[in-house]
Amino acid sequence: MRGKFSAFFEPGSVAVIGASAFPGKSGNTVIRNILANGYEGKLYLVNPKGGQILGVPVNTSVASLPEGIDLAIIALPAKETPETLRECAKKGIRHAVLQAGGFAEVDEYGTEIQKELTTIIRENGIRVLGPNTSGHTSTPHQFTSSLFPQGKIRRGKVSYLAQTGNFATHTMRYILTGEHFGVSRVIGLGNKIDIEESEALEYLGGDPETSAIIMYLEDLDRPRRFFEIAREVSRIKPVVLLKGGVTEAGKHAAIAHTAAMAAEDRLVDGLLRQAGIVRIYEYTHLILAGKALSMVPLPKGKRVSFLAPSGAMLVVGSDLCVRLGLEVPDLEPETIRRLREISPPFIRMRNPVDIWGAASMKGVEFAYREGMEAVLKDPNVDAVILVLMLTRETGVPPFDFIVQLAKRYPEKPVLVTFSGEKQPMEECKEYLEPRGVPTFPEIEQPFEVLSILYRCARAMDRPR
Amino acid sequence: MRGKFSAFFEPGSVAVIGASAFPGKSGNTVIRNILANGYEGKLYLVNPKGGQILGVPVNTSVASLPEGIDLAIIALPAKETPETLRECAKKGIRHAVLQAGGFAEVDEYGTEIQKELTTIIRENGIRVLGPNTSGHTSTPHQFTSSLFPQGKIRRGKVSYLAQTGNFATHTMRYILTGEHFGVSRVIGLGNKIDIEESEALEYLGGDPETSAIIMYLEDLDRPRRFFEIAREVSRIKPVVLLKGGVTEAGKHAAIAHTAAMAAEDRLVDGLLRQAGIVRIYEYTHLILAGKALSMVPLPKGKRVSFLAPSGAMLVVGSDLCVRLGLEVPDLEPETIRRLREISPPFIRMRNPVDIWGAASMKGVEFAYREGMEAVLKDPNVDAVILVLMLTRETGVPPFDFIVQLAKRYPEKPVLVTFSGEKQPMEECKEYLEPRGVPTFPEIEQPFEVLSILYRCARAMDRPR
Repeated sequence: MRGKFSAFFEPGSVAVIGASAFPGKSGNTVIRNILANGYEGKLYLVNPKGGQILGVPVNTSVASLPEGIDLAIIALPAKETPETLRECAKKGIRHAVLQAGGFAEVDEYGTEIQKELTTIIRENGIRVLGPNTSGHTSTPHQFTSSLFPQGKIRRGKVSYLAQTGNFATHTMRYILTGEHFGVSRVIGLGNKIDIEESEALEYLGGDPETSAIIMYLEDLDRPRRFFEIAREVSRIKPVVLLKGGVTEAGKHAAIAHTAAMAAEDRLVDGLLRQAGIVRIYEYTHLILAGKALSMVPLPKGKRVSFLAPSGAMLVVGSDLCVRLGLEVPDLEPETIRRLREISPPFIRMRNPVDIWGAASMKGVEFAYREGMEAVLKDPNVDAVILVLMLTRETGVPPFDFIVQLAKRYPEKPVLVTFSGEKQPMEECKEYLEPRGVPTFPEIEQPFEVLSILYRCARAMDRPR
Repeated sequence: MRGKFSAFFEPGSVAVIGASAFPGKSGNTVIRNILANGYEGKLYLVNPKGGQILGVPVNTSVASLPEGIDLAIIALPAKETPETLRECAKKGIRHAVLQAGGFAEVDEYGTEIQKELTTIIRENGIRVLGPNTSGHTSTPHQFTSSLFPQGKIRRGKVSYLAQTGNFATHTMRYILTGEHFGVSRVIGLGNKIDIEESEALEYLGGDPETSAIIMYLEDLDRPRRFFEIAREVSRIKPVVLLKGGVTEAGKHAAIAHTAAMAAEDRLVDGLLRQAGIVRIYEYTHLILAGKALSMVPLPKGKRVSFLAPSGAMLVVGSDLCVRLGLEVPDLEPETIRRLREISPPFIRMRNPVDIWGAASMKGVEFAYREGMEAVLKDPNVDAVILVLMLTRETGVPPFDFIVQLAKRYPEKPVLVTFSGEKQPMEECKEYLEPRGVPTFPEIEQPFEVLSILYRCARAMDRPR
């Protein structure tokens, strides 16, 4: 059975209307992206000039297309969009991605065209993504409608639902070049003339290719419906949200106004929590949470053990745990005994674990491997963070032991960060992440991300 | 006139006691570091075996050293330290760095030795840094007592005062390999048996080689004296503090206890603010604030303009400004006019600046250069943040225009962050930072750091 959005995410045939022969034009980039992703359905292009573009024959009009194409990507200016959408409807195309900007977000003229589009959609029963969207992506189907140069988009199991085009443009480029995880579906909502966050969330909730949902939203079209859906979806998969525009109207940031916003924001906060949505506050966490959710299990609880080569880092990390709602539990006597065994006596071994002495005296690999295994074994520990000391002079170990230990304790997330030299940190990331162990460049990040994971787990387990 | 700590920071002669011929031993690493930094004073080594280490002749005992050496670095185990310190005193050495750990921080025996040291110090009028310190650094004098492999430490104008050894060990390695700024003085306080934060802060306050002071502290030995000194120093240079152990005792993080800590912490907060100390909460900010304070002026006010290639980033950035106490002001009509000129009409131009349209239509360099100059010129703007869109396909511009514009408006800090592909981001950092423009890998960081700079400026200007 094909779902109601299958024409968007598993289209058997696609028409790019406004196909362009000129590199750099979005009507050209869309085609390049479709080809680069190895789309296996039928691809039609439309441009009055005809001919071929990138080896694909071009129809001169929508009218000359075959009947019943699944999806149209309309890469034409705002003012040409309504007429084109009407022509699509006539050819039995019932799903469209509208890329042009210049609608209601800009001026009254744009608002007028947007109203016209709404009428066409209603009269013809068409489903539309956009306008003003940079596109959507569906890696299980090797398909994207992105208008920004993407190349092959890595397949993964998290999906992004975003009231911004960034996850079909430059932020996706960052994920593809700077990270090692992939995505399943990406939905850039644009101006939400038709498909909005409630329906999109419902789709992702039921999507077997989506194991976690990460959202960036600025407003909700149908808040009640949205929270209703979120309440259900968040029980079966993690639902994470960055809410933009918390202080948007407060551009002048008068203190009184900020206070008012803060009160309103606390209300939003409560609604989100009831709906099982895990709220985040940093754009960077949209990426880092996506990475962690792609690689590690959710922790069973909030009890963290962490190993760091510095007393100050232990203190700062403990402070951070408390602030983030995590716990740094006492360890079993057996664990302490083992930690003492590997460490010189001048360091007091407990949780968090000061690995400096062991690493200095017995080598970085031995110290971290033995220390890591000791805390992973401990029944009081739900998750482990390593602050790896990496400098050439003190020794950069082979990193395989981390992968092996993480595999041996598959129910406990292992997150890695660093202190030391930049080059080995990069090498460690390159080694660990393709093998399923996420790394984080800043020492605070694994703690922040773990608290997001823990909140996801708690939301999924919450009582009805 | 030589200051009271000149023997530590400008020693004419130094003895390493516990010098070792074995690479990897701290008594060997100390010597390597001293040589690598090009120390120009006299260097003596002491080891009962005599001979030469790294080409430097070795004295067999402290007794055989010449009289009146400025500074001893004692790289011996805890239990040998008191006797050695006595011998040093006999030879007229009045300043020492005690590296060994294993004192009061570990057990009662260590506490006993530490008491003995205190007696020796008092009886002989010796000044001591440590014990349990990884050392100190003074780049203007090309000197370090660090026991961790450092290589040549880059000279700079910020100084670190830290109740942790990290800034003489792995965190310094990160700064040297991952960043482009340098340090002036670094003081690792260790167990503070003699020199503590008040005296050290006073020294750095009067130090012409120190333009800003960044501190990590866990406790204050003489809080009243410390705040007294901070009150004066913070009027002449930025004083930034990460207070560790805010929730230290709260290791079990019981909620009630956390609440108690929070109340106590608010008290600390008020004291710090009165003393003109800018408090930070992230370890990473110790590094990023150091970078910014090394490269850009303090802003004259809190009014930020920022350019980003995405509406969502404008919204998230604005939210962040409000949360951080920064302002996103309206621009002059002339500025708006110029921004409209460079942008296609389908994007509304204002502050913050959506540079997407201009970058897409007219090229990344043109858009950011013209946009950046327009807002730098604007009298309503105190600082500018660029979120540079960098992908190969959309074009990676030469970055010189950023350096040139930053120079042309020397009173306005310019901070850079990115969206797009990792490789060009790294290249941009490599280009900009040695030329004095700081970059930040995460989009939140330039905002966070700018708010730290603004708070520094406000502290320096505060009424008496």
